[in-house]
Amino acid sequence: MKHLPFLDLIYEDIERVEALLRERPPDQHEAIGVAVDQLVGGGGKRIRPALVLLSSHLCKADIDKAIFAAAAAEMLHTATLIHDDLIDGALMRRGIQTLSARWSHGATVLTGDYIFARSAYLASRCGDIRLMQCLTETLMVICNGEILQMFNGQRGRNFETSVSSVESLSRAASRQEYEQRIYAKTASLIAMSAQTGAILADAEREKTDALRAYGERLGMAFQIVDDVLDFVADDEVLGKPVGGDLRQGLVTLPLLLFLEAEPDHPAVRRALEENPSDEVAREAVRAVAGSSSIEQALEVARQHVDQAKAALSVFSDSSYLTALLDMADFIVRRYF
Amino acid sequence: MKHLPFLDLIYEDIERVEALLRERPPDQHEAIGVAVDQLVGGGGKRIRPALVLLSSHLCKADIDKAIFAAAAAEMLHTATLIHDDLIDGALMRRGIQTLSARWSHGATVLTGDYIFARSAYLASRCGDIRLMQCLTETLMVICNGEILQMFNGQRGRNFETSVSSVESLSRAASRQEYEQRIYAKTASLIAMSAQTGAILADAEREKTDALRAYGERLGMAFQIVDDVLDFVADDEVLGKPVGGDLRQGLVTLPLLLFLEAEPDHPAVRRALEENPSDEVAREAVRAVAGSSSIEQALEVARQHVDQAKAALSVFSDSSYLTALLDMADFIVRRYF
Repeated sequence: MKHLPFLDLIYEDIERVEALLRERPPDQHEAIGVAVDQLVGGGGKRIRPALVLLSSHLCKADIDKAIFAAAAAEMLHTATLIHDDLIDGALMRRGIQTLSARWSHGATVLTGDYIFARSAYLASRCGDIRLMQCLTETLMVICNGEILQMFNGQRGRNFETSVSSVESLSRAASRQEYEQRIYAKTASLIAMSAQTGAILADAEREKTDALRAYGERLGMAFQIVDDVLDFVADDEVLGKPVGGDLRQGLVTLPLLLFLEAEPDHPAVRRALEENPSDEVAREAVRAVAGSSSIEQALEVARQHVDQAKAALSVFSDSSYLTALLDMADFIVRRYF
Repeated sequence: MKHLPFLDLIYEDIERVEALLRERPPDQHEAIGVAVDQLVGGGGKRIRPALVLLSSHLCKADIDKAIFAAAAAEMLHTATLIHDDLIDGALMRRGIQTLSARWSHGATVLTGDYIFARSAYLASRCGDIRLMQCLTETLMVICNGEILQMFNGQRGRNFETSVSSVESLSRAASRQEYEQRIYAKTASLIAMSAQTGAILADAEREKTDALRAYGERLGMAFQIVDDVLDFVADDEVLGKPVGGDLRQGLVTLPLLLFLEAEPDHPAVRRALEENPSDEVAREAVRAVAGSSSIEQALEVARQHVDQAKAALSVFSDSSYLTALLDMADFIVRRYF
């Protein structure tokens, strides 16, 4: 993993979080431990725990509690990935085979469920009911967003879908829907993570709202960059095949912007029809990757990052504030 | 639904719980509402909410909080049923088609996830962190138990399994494993429900432990009776095909007891081989149903019920205590 300087301040905290993530309750089936180790040990960027810890230091919250909340946020993220990969039929994640590619569907569903439960259990050990309310609301937002996406025909092509892709395409062709989707999918949990410090410190409303706003904007930017990388990264760096979204018929911001400029591009239209061949998909990815829509999408991400940083103006200077600002900048500079 | 006199005392509370279960958060996708209405409106016995409410009255807890906890317990139960039916490939539940029989796997996984989240959210609205700890621990126990069962080859034949059924049979042929399984599957959540009143009332340790012990024993009895009904009920009363466990290769107490007496019964052995024909399965079910193992299993259930009732001796007389004792008796007299 690349060295991320804004993590230096919380290096020891992160070590404690890692230890907690690897902790195996005595009765737990061995398979769960193996799955958790692989998933949480799989080189994730630890963005969510880092946000919990930095915001906790910023608000002078109890760091012993923050460790549990940070582990809970990472576990929740992991659980959603497990069920997502299952539903999307994804075979690779972070350069290794997904759980759903190796295990039966049943085992994958249950392991995801267990990790959800463990996440909520870790959060409960903070002893803060407001955090529990925030975590459970966030989980509802995430699941609801995924259900919306599914019933609107925007995913699950590999599993089953009842909506034709022509219909789904026209439905997806809305910036507002895209924003709602990535808010639910990514920004809601990142916002929760950033807000956690203020919750645990019982900070005043102004600071809680500021960290929430920072996290929401950061989360939107993070997902937009992810969606850009799905077009421009190479398979090896990405740890999964490039163009995965497009192959699944999922229309993300770079593609939305591309279609606004070139609604009738033949390769892209063909790729959006059901089950495009690898060749067609690669051609469409190249067309989008070589267009100005990539730079336009990154510009939208940068605007979100600027708003995220601006939201933190209520806090006075500190090394933790600087780290949060640096992290926002990192989000749009990352290549993985 | 049959009139259950021990529910009279909490009739109005249950109505409030039902209203809460039917409540639809504004952003929630319509499909979730439809699923929840069907599942929680599908004629369940409301054993778990009733236990939450009766124990809350018994311990003089805040009933406004107990309403939320009761709805949370029923939601949690519902969520586990959704994923269970998916994994087991069950087509019918309570006389109606399961969600997984009508929807794609993806939609079913996500709806279950959402209902887990909503359950935890409802519980968080009690504002009691100990309840959250109990609920999340219970969910871990349930999921862990299901994973154990799956990796031990005791389920998921309809989905996928890597263990031969001969192996799995010998592994299942242990009363201890059966008890561990039904504790995780059923008794843990029923114990949590019974314990909730003491948690919400912050009752002394003795009462908390007593309600926990009552719920554990009650839950064991409840599942044993369920397992008996799977042999002796008829399809229509049961709301699903009789002999479902055996068809799935799941060895429950009546069958365990039967195999102890007649280890080489040809029809039963054949039915335990993979994918028995309907005829073979029915013959095996008839053999077990007509044997003394049914009465022996019910006797084990009655012993659990006696222990459940004995655990409540720490409480002084009240109508709520009587209702809890009556409920325990009902468990072994029910036919659905």
